Amino acid sequence: MPYKALDENSVPDYVKSRPALGGLFPSDCDVGVKEIGDGNVNLVFMVENKDNREHSAVLKQALPYLRVAGESWPLTRERMRFETQALLKYNELAPGLAPEVYDHDEEMSLVIMEHLKGFEIMRKPLVARKRFPRFVDHISTFMARTLFFTSDLYLTRVEKKGLQDRFVHPQLHKIQEDFVFTNPYMDSPENNWNPEIDAEVKAVRSNSTLKLALAEIKESYITHVQALIHGDLHTGSVMLNNDRTCVIDPEFAFFGPMGFDVGAMLENLVLNLLSHYAHTKDPAERSVYREYLLELVKGVWDEFARKFDDLWKKNQRGELVPSGYWQFQGGSEAFEEYRSQYILDLLRDTAGYGGAKMLRRMMGIVSVWDISIIEDLKKRAVAELAAIRIGSRWLLERKQITGINDLIGIVKEETKDI
Amino acid sequence: MPYKALDENSVPDYVKSRPALGGLFPSDCDVGVKEIGDGNVNLVFMVENKDNREHSAVLKQALPYLRVAGESWPLTRERMRFETQALLKYNELAPGLAPEVYDHDEEMSLVIMEHLKGFEIMRKPLVARKRFPRFVDHISTFMARTLFFTSDLYLTRVEKKGLQDRFVHPQLHKIQEDFVFTNPYMDSPENNWNPEIDAEVKAVRSNSTLKLALAEIKESYITHVQALIHGDLHTGSVMLNNDRTCVIDPEFAFFGPMGFDVGAMLENLVLNLLSHYAHTKDPAERSVYREYLLELVKGVWDEFARKFDDLWKKNQRGELVPSGYWQFQGGSEAFEEYRSQYILDLLRDTAGYGGAKMLRRMMGIVSVWDISIIEDLKKRAVAELAAIRIGSRWLLERKQITGINDLIGIVKEETKDI
Repeated sequence: MPYKALDENSVPDYVKSRPALGGLFPSDCDVGVKEIGDGNVNLVFMVENKDNREHSAVLKQALPYLRVAGESWPLTRERMRFETQALLKYNELAPGLAPEVYDHDEEMSLVIMEHLKGFEIMRKPLVARKRFPRFVDHISTFMARTLFFTSDLYLTRVEKKGLQDRFVHPQLHKIQEDFVFTNPYMDSPENNWNPEIDAEVKAVRSNSTLKLALAEIKESYITHVQALIHGDLHTGSVMLNNDRTCVIDPEFAFFGPMGFDVGAMLENLVLNLLSHYAHTKDPAERSVYREYLLELVKGVWDEFARKFDDLWKKNQRGELVPSGYWQFQGGSEAFEEYRSQYILDLLRDTAGYGGAKMLRRMMGIVSVWDISIIEDLKKRAVAELAAIRIGSRWLLERKQITGINDLIGIVKEETKDI
Repeated sequence: MPYKALDENSVPDYVKSRPALGGLFPSDCDVGVKEIGDGNVNLVFMVENKDNREHSAVLKQALPYLRVAGESWPLTRERMRFETQALLKYNELAPGLAPEVYDHDEEMSLVIMEHLKGFEIMRKPLVARKRFPRFVDHISTFMARTLFFTSDLYLTRVEKKGLQDRFVHPQLHKIQEDFVFTNPYMDSPENNWNPEIDAEVKAVRSNSTLKLALAEIKESYITHVQALIHGDLHTGSVMLNNDRTCVIDPEFAFFGPMGFDVGAMLENLVLNLLSHYAHTKDPAERSVYREYLLELVKGVWDEFARKFDDLWKKNQRGELVPSGYWQFQGGSEAFEEYRSQYILDLLRDTAGYGGAKMLRRMMGIVSVWDISIIEDLKKRAVAELAAIRIGSRWLLERKQITGINDLIGIVKEETKDI
């Protein structure tokens, strides 16, 4: 059917009309619907079969504009196609680590997927100092598998090109590029920052060294076609409980540098760490939880790197460097060295992109919930200034980074007084 | 009409049937045809209106296989589409510096273009120590304009994507990638080298450091989608006389790293320089011509860099970094620094790709005419070993390069005894 934005009244008939959903929502059942989106760009409905509450689903439909900035940043609904394609790919490559897709409708720009009942968006429990014992294992598996299996290390050239073509939308990507790498650092009407850090924001905007690094890393983001990345992999795109972790919202998915995903994840853990300056009054308690968050940072990277390397060793199938290339005296050590250099470059990219993303959250269109909910603007400023310092250093020192401990060391140094 | 390989007998009727060629070859004229291809992959005919010898053209038609390796490396005829698209783009961006396209026929996989009467393929006169006073100016303009105007520095994201889509052929690119970066350095049946350098070739194939660098730069070649590059810009793809320089044969054109084109050009000048060890017996004469070739290397780079920078300053139109981004105290210096860093990175890429291409010519499927015509295999080996030394150093030292004189210095050091 032609596109029409659904609402709570029209969803029941819609889901009952879909053959693929016959098992969940038979035509004679009573369907309950609740809009649950906080939606920048989408409608999100929780849909439930009232006759059998085990049968539920989430329906997500793209709106034709980006709400956060009014209608001034028009986005085509096409992005829902990317989200759907990415989720289907995740279902294939990392089953259980993303919501299962039940049905999708390209004309209506919507996807119907698993209802993650009782899951929390990760940001919130992190503010409440909750711990997730399986998170490191899950997210590192998700990143290692989705990035490795969509890169030239695994795919043939033809396969990669075929997959790449399903994620092309230069207008949409331009918005993301500008909002991360450009607009926050210049005069742009949508920028938004805490007046308490006005001087520091202005200092960033006229810091030649930082702006050079940002320009350089933006070029690399745009031109480095490495793997299918999620494109927005922060702790707001993770839903979890004690048993499962699911990555959601891959509507910005496209072929770009792997370090952008890994950087987003680590950066958001650090921003949460900084937010505890305000959220956790007790210094001892704060310090303990911060240590935990730094363990997550280290664990996510170490496990990701280990699993990525392992997949590489076990799946020498891509056409980038065939296994025969390493067949010489000392070749297996050279291959090992190559993998280790590749993964170190990935960590350096992680530092650069993570740093840039930390900065933009302090002065661009999108802030970060963990910190922006701090009501006391002076306290909030303390966290934000630390984020600016850490983000700047991750970015500027990225080429000298030799291990994850360097990134953690910077966090510790810049938070020792707060 | 459906594809059919033309021959000298069928060309006259074909060209007379084309409305776009009515002015050159009216239906009642007498058409002379001569096959002039040395053809690896194409048929090339010189076509002349015998009633008016000013009216001539070159017809180039793709064969469905790559002759150089028999029929074992099948190539689709589609590549002629890329050659045609690239030539049309060159006609637009660098008029006069590529043959004018008169007509093209996608179904027949052919293009009909300007006959460059009296032009020489550059390799040959370089072996004869000829000088081309306008070459530096022409080739630097060609490279600066075709690379700048097809990059993110000039094109919008949407424009770039649109252009990029016209040059996609992963199978074809894979052959080029493997023949440059992989197969020459491992056991592969099509490899071919001078038995006099057998030990050194084997040493390269088991040199971990070199192979790591080659793997690294291959990844970058595949994933760095920077601009529309010619993809095979050696001195055999340049036709010239004293007044004009034309770039031909862009059938490998695709979106890749700019340094691959610049590197190919500089590398081929250096290989020619090395060939004079055999071609020019008189040491004084040899030394003078070598100096001239090094002046070309320096001139091509310096002029390219200057013109590229100039185009950038005058055309701040791309979406990569908008001009407002540099509007702060010290911003214009930062923008200058950014351009200069970008161009230095381009030189480092040039060194890496040029070095890799120098190596592959010594031990892969395609040798280089300037050197392979040396009949005395021992003399040929002297030139080849120098090429291996220089190529290795350009590649391995690329990240420390700070200017073109570093590359020239390596050439001088490695040729001081020959």
